[in-house]
Order: sequence, then C-alpha cells, then structure tokens
Amino acid sequence: MTLYNDLFSYTALENLLSDAACVKAMLQFEAALAVAEARTGVIQEAAALKIAECCREAQFDLPLLAKEAERAGNIAIPLVKMLTEEVARQDKDAARFVHWGATSQDAIDTGLVLQLREALALVEMDLIRLSVTLAKLAGVHRKTVMVARTWMQQALPTTFGFAGASWLDAALRHRRRLLEIRPRVLSLQFGGAVGTLAALHGDGPEVARALAAELQLALPTTSWHAQRDRMAEAATFFGLLTGTLGKIARDISLHSQTEVAELFEPSDQGRGRSSTMPHKRNPVTCSVVLAAATRVPGLVSTILTAMPQEQQRGLGGWQAEWETLPQIIRLSGGALHHLAEMLPNLEVDPQRMRQNLEATQGLIFAEAVSMALAEKIGKMPAHQFVEAACKKALVERRPLQQVLHEEPGLRGHLTPAELERLFDARNYLGSAEEFIDRILAEFNELPHAN
Amino acid sequence: MTLYNDLFSYTALENLLSDAACVKAMLQFEAALAVAEARTGVIQEAAALKIAECCREAQFDLPLLAKEAERAGNIAIPLVKMLTEEVARQDKDAARFVHWGATSQDAIDTGLVLQLREALALVEMDLIRLSVTLAKLAGVHRKTVMVARTWMQQALPTTFGFAGASWLDAALRHRRRLLEIRPRVLSLQFGGAVGTLAALHGDGPEVARALAAELQLALPTTSWHAQRDRMAEAATFFGLLTGTLGKIARDISLHSQTEVAELFEPSDQGRGRSSTMPHKRNPVTCSVVLAAATRVPGLVSTILTAMPQEQQRGLGGWQAEWETLPQIIRLSGGALHHLAEMLPNLEVDPQRMRQNLEATQGLIFAEAVSMALAEKIGKMPAHQFVEAACKKALVERRPLQQVLHEEPGLRGHLTPAELERLFDARNYLGSAEEFIDRILAEFNELPHAN
Amino acid sequence: MTLYNDLFSYTALENLLSDAACVKAMLQFEAALAVAEARTGVIQEAAALKIAECCREAQFDLPLLAKEAERAGNIAIPLVKMLTEEVARQDKDAARFVHWGATSQDAIDTGLVLQLREALALVEMDLIRLSVTLAKLAGVHRKTVMVARTWMQQALPTTFGFAGASWLDAALRHRRRLLEIRPRVLSLQFGGAVGTLAALHGDGPEVARALAAELQLALPTTSWHAQRDRMAEAATFFGLLTGTLGKIARDISLHSQTEVAELFEPSDQGRGRSSTMPHKRNPVTCSVVLAAATRVPGLVSTILTAMPQEQQRGLGGWQAEWETLPQIIRLSGGALHHLAEMLPNLEVDPQRMRQNLEATQGLIFAEAVSMALAEKIGKMPAHQFVEAACKKALVERRPLQQVLHEEPGLRGHLTPAELERLFDARNYLGSAEEFIDRILAEFNELPHAN
Amino acid sequence: MTLYNDLFSYTALENLLSDAACVKAMLQFEAALAVAEARTGVIQEAAALKIAECCREAQFDLPLLAKEAERAGNIAIPLVKMLTEEVARQDKDAARFVHWGATSQDAIDTGLVLQLREALALVEMDLIRLSVTLAKLAGVHRKTVMVARTWMQQALPTTFGFAGASWLDAALRHRRRLLEIRPRVLSLQFGGAVGTLAALHGDGPEVARALAAELQLALPTTSWHAQRDRMAEAATFFGLLTGTLGKIARDISLHSQTEVAELFEPSDQGRGRSSTMPHKRNPVTCSVVLAAATRVPGLVSTILTAMPQEQQRGLGGWQAEWETLPQIIRLSGGALHHLAEMLPNLEVDPQRMRQNLEATQGLIFAEAVSMALAEKIGKMPAHQFVEAACKKALVERRPLQQVLHEEPGLRGHLTPAELERLFDARNYLGSAEEFIDRILAEFNELPHAN
Repeated sequence: MTLYNDLFSYTALENLLSDAACVKAMLQFEAALAVAEARTGVIQEAAALKIAECCREAQFDLPLLAKEAERAGNIAIPLVKMLTEEVARQDKDAARFVHWGATSQDAIDTGLVLQLREALALVEMDLIRLSVTLAKLAGVHRKTVMVARTWMQQALPTTFGFAGASWLDAALRHRRRLLEIRPRVLSLQFGGAVGTLAALHGDGPEVARALAAELQLALPTTSWHAQRDRMAEAATFFGLLTGTLGKIARDISLHSQTEVAELFEPSDQGRGRSSTMPHKRNPVTCSVVLAAATRVPGLVSTILTAMPQEQQRGLGGWQAEWETLPQIIRLSGGALHHLAEMLPNLEVDPQRMRQNLEATQGLIFAEAVSMALAEKIGKMPAHQFVEAACKKALVERRPLQQVLHEEPGLRGHLTPAELERLFDARNYLGSAEEFIDRILAEFNELPHAN
Repeated sequence: MTLYNDLFSYTALENLLSDAACVKAMLQFEAALAVAEARTGVIQEAAALKIAECCREAQFDLPLLAKEAERAGNIAIPLVKMLTEEVARQDKDAARFVHWGATSQDAIDTGLVLQLREALALVEMDLIRLSVTLAKLAGVHRKTVMVARTWMQQALPTTFGFAGASWLDAALRHRRRLLEIRPRVLSLQFGGAVGTLAALHGDGPEVARALAAELQLALPTTSWHAQRDRMAEAATFFGLLTGTLGKIARDISLHSQTEVAELFEPSDQGRGRSSTMPHKRNPVTCSVVLAAATRVPGLVSTILTAMPQEQQRGLGGWQAEWETLPQIIRLSGGALHHLAEMLPNLEVDPQRMRQNLEATQGLIFAEAVSMALAEKIGKMPAHQFVEAACKKALVERRPLQQVLHEEPGLRGHLTPAELERLFDARNYLGSAEEFIDRILAEFNELPHAN
Repeated sequence: MTLYNDLFSYTALENLLSDAACVKAMLQFEAALAVAEARTGVIQEAAALKIAECCREAQFDLPLLAKEAERAGNIAIPLVKMLTEEVARQDKDAARFVHWGATSQDAIDTGLVLQLREALALVEMDLIRLSVTLAKLAGVHRKTVMVARTWMQQALPTTFGFAGASWLDAALRHRRRLLEIRPRVLSLQFGGAVGTLAALHGDGPEVARALAAELQLALPTTSWHAQRDRMAEAATFFGLLTGTLGKIARDISLHSQTEVAELFEPSDQGRGRSSTMPHKRNPVTCSVVLAAATRVPGLVSTILTAMPQEQQRGLGGWQAEWETLPQIIRLSGGALHHLAEMLPNLEVDPQRMRQNLEATQGLIFAEAVSMALAEKIGKMPAHQFVEAACKKALVERRPLQQVLHEEPGLRGHLTPAELERLFDARNYLGSAEEFIDRILAEFNELPHAN
Repeated sequence: MTLYNDLFSYTALENLLSDAACVKAMLQFEAALAVAEARTGVIQEAAALKIAECCREAQFDLPLLAKEAERAGNIAIPLVKMLTEEVARQDKDAARFVHWGATSQDAIDTGLVLQLREALALVEMDLIRLSVTLAKLAGVHRKTVMVARTWMQQALPTTFGFAGASWLDAALRHRRRLLEIRPRVLSLQFGGAVGTLAALHGDGPEVARALAAELQLALPTTSWHAQRDRMAEAATFFGLLTGTLGKIARDISLHSQTEVAELFEPSDQGRGRSSTMPHKRNPVTCSVVLAAATRVPGLVSTILTAMPQEQQRGLGGWQAEWETLPQIIRLSGGALHHLAEMLPNLEVDPQRMRQNLEATQGLIFAEAVSMALAEKIGKMPAHQFVEAACKKALVERRPLQQVLHEEPGLRGHLTPAELERLFDARNYLGSAEEFIDRILAEFNELPHAN
C-alpha cells in the first residue's frame, strides 16, 4: 500500500527504504566483500572487480526476486543466485567467488545497516532543523505569556517560549542519544553460516576488518546474528523520538482547538481543509505525527519480542524484523520530517494566549495569591482561605481579584497594589526565562546548531 | 516494500489490499451511495447512473492521489475531488451529487469494510482448508504414538493424531468466532460530517438503509466514526487466529529439529534450502507463520491503543488504523494461507516418533508406573518410590523398566507382565482417541467441512 | 505495589484477584475434582469428603507458598503438596487421592476461570450500570444542542444526547460480546499431564463431565493446555471494552477543559483537587480510565504474543499469562467501575454547550448554508461561495450570517428568513434523535436493562 | 498479587519496589527539599530539620494513603497532607514549609528516580555477575565442540565457549548502555506546578541545584514533567536487556530438550520437578526469563505510548507509568537475577555435545567439504556436487563421508586424508577462538570485571 506514502513519509525516506534501495544495499555489501577479500588476498583482484562491477551495474528482476524469496525464505539467497549468474555470464571464474564465505544474513543485516546509516543521517538533519525552529520559538516567545495547563485544566501562567524550550530540551537529548547509539548500530554484520567465518579458514577476522573499512562501518567484536540488541536499540531510539514528536503534536492539537485557538498549523494550499466544512483547518501534520506515535510503540514491542532468537541464527524472530524495522524508520522519520517542515510556519496567536489567561476570571492566579499569603499566615491556612474565595468567585461568577479585594481576612496581609501585582501573569512566571536560557545554551553547544 | 509480499502474503490477498483495490472499494461506496440516493428520491436517477458509471470506469492517477492525500489528510478528499471532476466532464449536473451527504470517513471506512469482507471470505476458505487437513491428520494418525512434551521436556506418550486434533479444536473455535463477528464488522459506515446525516435533512436513515442493501452490508443502529470497537474486534480476531497459527508453527518447528526429526515441511522445489549448508531443510513456512505471530500482537495493540478517538471524529487514532489494519489482515491471512498450503504436504515420520519414545530409557513411563503403584500403596509413597528408581536409572544410565524389575519394593505390587504393559506407550494414551472423536464430530457439524 | 489499588481498581475486584482468592479458586477445583471422582466411582466418597473439607477449611501459608513456587515453577505444585499434607494429617488414605489424575495446569487454569467468572459477573453488572446511565443521558439530553467536533475542531451542531447514545451504542456491543465469549472462556481445564487424562484409565471424560457440572463450567471438547485462544479471547474482550471506556473518558476530559467547560466530573469530597492550585478540578476518573486504556493494549499484546505455546504444555508463554491476565481484568474492570460510578454524577452544562456553538461566529453553520445553497447552484459552486464568505468572516472577525447577508451572490437563492433558520443549530441536527431512539430501543431489548 | 514474587522477582528487588519503599523515596525527596530550601535561605533551618526528621521517622498509614489517593488522583497529595499534619503536631511553624514550592509530580517522579537508582545498582551488580559467569563459560569451553544450529536445524560445528561468548558480547553492550543512560535517567524532577518554580520567586534554580546535590542526582536543565523520554529510556534499557536474557534462556531451553540434552539447569532442592512426572527437570529459570521476555515488550510499548503527555502535565499518560515502570524493573531485574544465580550452576554435557555432532551422519560437514571442493572446481559446481551426495546419504541413510569417499567425482580433488580432516569438527571452527578472545578482552576492560 503506497497511498499514504506522502502523508506518513516523504520521498527521500521512501526512496531510501524502497525495494530498489534494499537490494542496492545488499549488493553494496557483496561488492565490498569481494573487494575486501581481494585486498586480503582471499580471492583474486580481477574476480573482485568483476563482482563489484556487476553489483553496481546489474539490474535484477525484483518481482522474480520476491517470488524466489518465498521459496528460499529470504531475499539474499535468490539475489546471490542472480548475481552469481550475472557474474558467470561475464566471467565464469569470478562467479565462483560471489558471496564468498558469507551467509544470507550477513548481506541482509549489513544491507539494513547501510540503509539505517542513511536514514539516521536524514533523521539527524531533520532533528537539527526541528531544534533550530524550536530554539527560535523559545527565543522569540520567551515573554509571550500563556496559560500552563495540567491535567488538561488551566493551571498557572507560563510562556509559550518556555513550552517550546521544553520541547527543545527533549529534542536535544535525542540528538545525544543518536551520537551514542551510532557506533553500536552502524556495525558490520559478517559471520558466515554460524558466526565462526569457518569458510574463510582463519582469514575471517582480517576480511571483516577490510570489509568494515570498505563500508565505513564499525567493526564489531564478533558477528551478532542472533544477538539483536543493536537493531533493537535502533528501534527503541526511534520509539523514544516518536514519543517526543507525539508530545509536541498533542500539544499543538490541543492549542489548536477552536475554543483555545492559540496555535495553528499553516493552511497553505488548502492543507487540512475539510470536504464538508469549509471553515475547518484540520491539523493534518499533528494527525500524522500522532498516528506515528500511536503506531511506533507496538512496532517497537515487536522488535523487542523478536529478540530471543534461537541459537546461532533464529527462526521467526529475525524474519519479524525485516519489514518492521523499516516501518519504524519510515513512520518515525516521516513524522519528524513533517513536523520539522510544518513548525517554521506554525501560526502563534499571542493575543489569544493572553485572553485565555482570563478565562477563569483570575482563578489561575490563586496559587500566586496563596503563596504570597502563605508567607504571612502559613501554607495550609492560606490554601484554605484562597480555596474559599475561589469557590465564592465560581458560585458568584465574579473575578477572583474582586472577591479577594472584598475579603476582610485579606486585609493587613496583602495591599490592593500587591493584589493587583499578583494578578499579572508576568509576575508569576518563576524562572521560566532562566530555564529557556539554559536550554538554549545547551542547544548552542551541539554541533551544526545553526 | 514489496520484496516480501510473496513470502509473508500471497497474490490474491495482496491484490485485495492493493492501492487499486482500496480505491475501487471507496468508489464502490460512492457508486452505491448515488444509487441509494436515487432510489430514495434524494437525487435524480440519471445523475446516479452517471456517477456509478464513472466510479466503475474512471481510472485515477494513484501517485497524484497520494500526493494530494498529504495535503488533505486522507485519501477520500482528493478521490472525491477527482471523481467529481470526472463526472463533471461528462455531466455537470450529475457532478453536483457526487458524495452527496457523506463525509470522507464514510467512504474510507466502508471501503475498508468491503475489503474486509473479501479478506474474511479468503480467510474462511483457508481456515476450512486448514481444518480439513488437520481433521485428516487427526484421523490418519489417531494411533500414531508420539512423545508428549511439556516445558520442552519429554513427558508422557500421546499420539500425533491427538496433537493434530488439538490444533483443529482451536481452529474450529476461530471459525465460530468468525461467524459471530461478521455482522458487527461487516457493517456500513454512513453518518455524514458528524454522524447526524444532517446534510440529508431527515432522509439519512432511509438512504442508509438503501445503501446498506446495495452494498449487502449490515445496517448499524448509527454510524460509528469514533466508536472503533467494530474494526478493533476484527483486529483481535486476527490476533487470536494468528496466535493459534503460531502455536502450530512453533510445534512443527520443534518437531523438525534435527535431533527430533518427527515432522518436516515439504522441501519441494528447493524450498527452505540454505545457501551455505546443502543438507539443511529450513522450515520456511514455520518461519513465516512465527514471524506473523511475533508481529501481529504489536499491531493489534496499536489498534486497541487507537480506540479512544476524540469526540465525533478523532485525530491521530483513526489515522493510525489506515495502514495497520490492512497489515494485520495481510500478515494473518498470509500466515494462514501458507500454513494451509503447506500442511497437506507435511512429512510425518511415525517411526522416528516411536524411537523418540525410547530416548529416556523408559522414564516417560514413570507416571504410568507411579499411578499403577499408587493404587496399591498410595500416591505419595508411589511417587517417591518411582522417583528414586528414576534417579537410579539416570545415574546408572539403565532402562527404568530394568531398574524397577530388580526393585524388591515393587514385588507383590506389580507383576513383570503388568510392568511390561506399563512400558508400552499404547497403554498409556488415556482418552486421546475419544477426544479426537469428539473434535472430529464438532468439525463435521460445521458447514463446508469437506 | 498496592498503593494504587483504590485508584485504579476497587475493593470487590481486588478481593476477587487477591492471593487468597486465587488459592481459594484452585482449592475449589481440587475439592470439586475429588467430589466428581467420587461421583464417578474413581475414588471413595469418604476420601472426597475429607479432601473437600480440607479445601474449604484449611489455611495455607501464602508466603511459604510463594517461596515454594520459586522452586516448583508454579503455585499449584506446592499448594497440592500442602493440601495433601493437611489431608494426610486427618486421613492418610484420603490423602492418596488429592489432585488425582490432574496436573498443576488443570488447577491453575480452572482456578483462573473461576475467578474470571466472578470478574465477568462484576463487569456485566457495571456494564449494565454504565448502560443505564448512558441511556438516561441520551434521553435527557436528546435535545441539548452541542458542538460536534472532528479532528479536534468545531465541526457542526449535534446534541449531547446523541454523543451519549453513541457511547451507549458501543457499550451494548460489549454486552453482546460478553454473552458470546462466556461459554468459550468459562470452560473447564482438565487434561492431566499431557491432555490425555491417562492417569484415569479411560474414566477421564466421565470425570471431566462431572467436574464441569460440579463447578458449573462449560465442558470443553478437550483440554486446552497449550491452545490459549480461550484466555486470549477474554483478554481481547477486555481490550475492546477498555478502548471504549477510554473513548468516553477522552471525550469527557476534552469537554472538561477550562476553555470548553461543558462537562465536569463531580468534585465531591475534594476529589480531583490540586495540591497547589485551589481552583482546579482535575478529572481524576478520566485519568484513571485513560491510564487503563494506555496500559491494557500492551498487556493484551503480551497475551497474544504468549499464544504460540510449545507442544503439550509450553515454556514461558503460559507463565507470562499468570500475572498479566489478572492485571488486565483489574485495570479494565477497575476503569469500568470508576466510570460507571462517576457518570451518574457527571455535571452537564447545557448553557455552556449552547454558548460554545457561537465560538466560530457562525462558521459551523457553513455546511448547512453550503448544502442549502447547493440545492440551488450545485455543490462545488456552493462550496466555493461559502468558503469565500467564511474567509471574509474570519479576516474581518465578523459573524458569517452577517457577511452572507450582505453578499449579493446569495440573493435570489436564500431569503433572510431562510438564512436565519440555517443558523439555528436545532435545524441542523439531521437524524440525531432517530438514531438516539434506535439505540435506546436496542438498549431496551437487552435483559436487566433497568 | 504476590504469589509469584519469589518466582519472577526476588526479595531485595521486591523490597526496593514495595509500597513502603515508594513512600520512603517520596519522603526522602520532601526531606531533601526542606534541607535544600534551608541551605538556600528559602525556609528556616529549624523548620527544615523538623520536616526532615518527620520524613525519616513518621509512620504513615498506607491503606489510608491508598484510599485517599483515589480521591486525590495520586499518592503524593495525601502523603504531603499526612506529612504536614505530622509536622504540625510537633511544630506548627515548620508545617507551613512542607513541600514548599513543589508539586505532587516532583515528589512522585523524584521518588521513582531514587528507586530507579537503587534498582540500577542491583541490576549492574547482577549484570556483572552474569558477565563474569559467561566469561568463565567462554573460557572453559573455548574448545568444547558443539553443533551450531540455524533456523532450528543443525548447521555447522561451533564451540559452546563461542556461544557463551556471544551471550557475553551482548551483556557487555548492556553494561555500556547502563553507563550512558544513568545521567539522563537519574535526574532530579523539580519544577513546581507548571515547571516554572514560580512559587519560589526566582530562587527555584538555586533550590534545584541544592536539592540535586542533596539527593546526589543529576541536575537537569529544566524539569521534565511532560517530557517523558528520560523514564521511557529507562524502560527501553530494560526492554533491550530482557531481550538478551530471553535469548540466553531460549537457547538453554532448546539445549535442555530431552532429545538434545546438552545443557541443564541445576535441579537442586527439587527445583523444576513435575508433580506428575518424576523424571522431569523443568527448566524453571528459563521459564521465568522467557515469561519476562514475553511480558516486558508490551510494558515498554505502554511507556512509549504514554509519552505524548498533554501540555505542562498530562492526563492519563503519566498515570499509566506509575505501576508499569516498576513492573518493568521488577520483571527485568528479576529475570536477570534468576539467570545470574542459575548460570554458575548450569550443567554442561560436552560429551553429548560431541555426540550430537554426529546426528546427521556427517551432513553438517557438507559446507566444509563444499568450500574445500569449491577451491578446486568452483563454488556452484562444488555446491551442487555436495548437495547430490547429501541427498544420497540421506536416502541411503549412510554417513556422508562414506558416500563421498565412493564418489568418483571427488577423486583428484580431495584425498581420503583431506576428507577425513574435513569431517573433524575441530577443523571447521573458523575464528571462533579469536572471537572469544576479543570478547574476553572487552570484558576485561570494563570495571569490576572480576
């Protein structure tokens, strides 16, 4: 099904995860293997060159490959067969050395790792793009007051800049995670049939070293055919990332509600228009990101469930990864891309944010009053006093400030001017700006920040 | 990614879930809607006929549709737009009545339901095919003794026929579930923008009735845009089914191990051959089924997670279903198909089954002895007596029967002939045959059994 | 951890799922087994009576049981051992017949089924209670106009009664599902070590029949030690139910937002008060239900993942069910209970609902106008005309009705009176009431409805 | 339910995750908060000392706490209330400053982080213990030949030492991951009601610094109430770890099958004995670990699903973490502990390993022959030649070596002595030993290795 490829993903990523790219990455492995084996004297250079050439240039029949995969149980077996035939057509001798010493899983896993490398590069780029936009939002809106909401209820004032900086804070951690997992994830798979590289008679480690160098992948201590924590870690990275993206999208969708109306996705070119309600601006990007955040966790659990793979190479678990891992990359990378693309054009309505602060007729300043009063009469009594005033304000549908103003119990503790000050959101933002600055400082420390 | 379509799925199912089929099903909805609205006098018959004709015959540009879906947020909006343009090219007036009174979700959900109907028909067919094969295995091997294994350890004798009948027992329950869920799952979606069918000014229910009749779908009490239990129930049905398939595949893969060698997948046409180990017969079908059983649970959890959809039509949850539900159908239906296809050619080695009964040198008959002895000396003493004999047999690596034979404590309780009898697996099969018969009787009750 | 037992669950359910209840249910199995075996002449009646008496009256040391379970691998082995010792203290002969012919899994699974039976009874009761409340809400608020929201945006008018009826519609399907799954789920487990009941020498089926009768459980065709679809179906039932509960809670939480303020959880006894913001009314019940809806899908996927259990009795999969299934019951039943308890006291603010209809200055009536106009000038032109008017209304921040009124293009097509009528929500509710009536009729058909 | 606490978990971990420990950790936060606020001059030292004293010494009524949590929506609100009352009983003034400036989530999250710190310490210890044992197994059995199995079929020779080293290889990566995630996971939560620490009037950051120092936790850039990637990362760490444990247990359970019989769990004190089959040695530890590996992925997906938490503090998502994260820790830590405890006593049967190498009558040496022959006649011809010989050997049930010996096609290519050599497993182990050495070298690099 490709009808949703543009909605949930994007062209560069789809290309990267396409059938053609998958086959190309496996052929890249086969070519590099031949070259590495020539370099280490295991096969002749002429054979290697011919094999590499065929890997680069041959066109294989993908539907036939799929058909053969059904019988073989994976795609590497028929691909190696086709490649061998192709090489044989040009050079019978060279054909003997195709896939020399390797097993199907070496080609499939390393191919996937090569795709992952490109995917992580795209993801890093979009993560940087996202960070840059969030840093801008945090900076521009550092003083834009907004209602902070907890339990989906108005709570206290904050700034939109701080909200954006908090999103950025998480995004920066994902960039650090990416740096940490890369060497473990972008790692050569090469062990031969059972991990011993027995077919190479002791030359295995040397070939592996040359092969890793050729592909510019990390050289692992040993092959990891049935130790899937490397791939699973990639999956969990995407899982964590998608969770953060979902959080941002959840927030934007809540702020975009008709009754809240503080943030809007750009609606250029009719994006998000409804077929029946001409006035609607559906937050399409949010829906895409939230859908990804709903889907990726189940896919990650599949990868984790698949980890206990049997003995030297497993049955069922590895096979469960084949389509799942690319799907995770697609959904997570797609969500990131769409969010990174949309966010620079996010419409922010600071005026409405200010208006919404007044929705409770001052109740959201109750804590400010309570805290100020607590310094005079103690926390519990202050809490109870303000609670009573709030109830009164609610029942009488009057502003809290007015109710408090009339309250004899307040006199002697808070002057009208003090009270006035307490009902100004700008005076109850705590250390929001300091936190923004810290997050921006951290952002500036990371490379490629601008 | 389509490289694994033949391995994990099969042509008929892939066709059914293809982009083209998805679009066709939505157009089927649009055509039937027009017809139903003509039938109920809401629109003119000529318009309906023209719309229906275009739905049948027009060819739409699927890549363009995908591109437009990105902006619109779903595929129905651009499809309806294209259809309207197509109709308008032929009949301006008729074009006004395309998609009349409906919302995108009506087309997408009903389209999916139509695809589900065909998928369930394929699944039922394969489920019957599977049941028929299992019934045959149960009948043919009703007396084929085999080791029963618990906790992956040899336990007691059973028959292969009983094992097969137990698989069948579960398969029959799935057939009953299928009957139960069909009316709930194969149900029209038609509510207009917010479920009230307001745009039809009171004609909604009548149109809905005609539309359901036209599509031969169940007419629901009301539309279910944000009440997703119908679709989720389809997902859980496939989840349960896949679990049973996985159980069968798990068993076959265990019985196929080199050291057990009781069952084998057919290896026709090189199926399951290894690229590096010419002697291997990899259980490819088992790997496919086990992969599905590893993947489907996570996908089902996605569908369940997506259920709390917001208000009249949700944001993120519904979108999460779009690719997930077809994926569940594909994997579950694919696994079922491959298993149903392979099983008639499953190779059974009754001789090896008999041999494996002797692997413990009689220890698996300990319970039989213990039970027989318990009738004489009580359960606990018998248990302890036999336990001691087993230890001795293990330590001395001798047959249990021999050790027991020498045991003075046994004399007076069990004669040598009785002992001999206790070590014949055929005498310790309990009611296995009766259970087989009952399951076969139940099998025969269900329609289309042969 | 029990600190959250009252929040996520409730006393009756916790009692039902407690260690004591779990042990009691297994002892109920052991007692009934003895009685059934006496009734079928397999053991002596006196022994059976003594065993049954001990099952009823003996107090077992649960911490010791837990300790022994570590070594044995399950709780039935040490429990049977303790029970046997207890019986032996009173009657050596009777002790020989404790657990006669059964295996640990028979006791554990049947015990769980007995707990499930009570849990399903509680769930059914709460489901009825929930349905009754929803039916009342649907009836009382059948004419309470409210904004329908799609994609978290205001869409068109609807009624709160219709929203409630839609919740009810799903609840009624769950009641039907409950009826369907009961016979499959509430089914005896009794197969002996490997399902053949070999230790009973052919009396197995008769004992099974008597045992099922004694426990008032369905008699299955055969035991289902490694065919877990029965238990998995119970899990998926709870999964579907929890999804619907989550949907209701999601809606209420959205309607409870400060800016929307249409629905409120009752805040009796300080429920949902914030520690720092005296004015807040946190929707505590919604949080509990949404937490359950977030947790249950993963637990269901565990149960589905565990289904492919090895051979006659599996390793790891069955064990994975032990705590997971009770957890699913606890969370789902708990969420249902809290919701059923809260809903009768849900505060509804019809006035605010009406006010919110005006939030878009008439934009939500655009479809009504568009449809009315479409009948005159065709769908697309009407759509485009109204779209333009909406844009103007938005830019100029004026009521749509006013903008349309001034629009020359409208004249001759819609009179001011017609326009006025189109901006009254009560005239654009479609067939909402008819749908409510149908759902209420279906509600009335089900037993115990009042 | 605590009946399975000893089986799935262990005392130290249960204690760490108990209700009492959970409350203690929250009180540790409250005490440290008071101390930090005294240190920064926000509250008086005397008050802080009194609060800290009460936190240390007061005994709270846990059932009452649970009851109150139902109303409050979390456990911190009633706990703070109880603590305040307790302090007030001793010092009214001090009571005013309990929980000063903090929000419930600060106490609950930081409390959880403190529990996590202890849990990670236990996990690290067991991970080291596991690594040490695996390193020993790898070293001791570096030359113990064993069949390598792929797709659950015998494939080629390997050594048990290499299998053990491969397990170790994954374990070492988990140790590195643990080092990386610690600073992110073991991080103070302190933001006040909405993350701004507004109630502390600008002193927030300073108090936070002192508080982090007091608790010896990392000081985060800002609070992370609704940015859950830190906690989710802890969950994914446990998910990855459990997958590896499951892989080891899966392998051991396969090697323990009666027909394979290469490895056995120790059966001291009756561990793993069956109630009905006295000869069985159920791999109880494997069952526990596999159960954990089946359960943890679904729980991790819950944590990931819960990540998109609303705005400043969410509704439903955070609540879904409360019991889930401790459950993940319990299952993962429990599985690790049981495996680390069992492994030193794992029984290895090198003789049986050698015997199993002969099960295929030499077929597993086919690749060795094929590779040797390939150097003479090319890969494809060699492959086909050997394949034919294998078929013959299978059909005639004769040793492959014998069949090959008679094969005229072999002559001139391989001498009998060469053939003999090819059928000795020790000559086809590739670089297994070199890989073992590399892994052991890496093991020795990590601290506390011995």
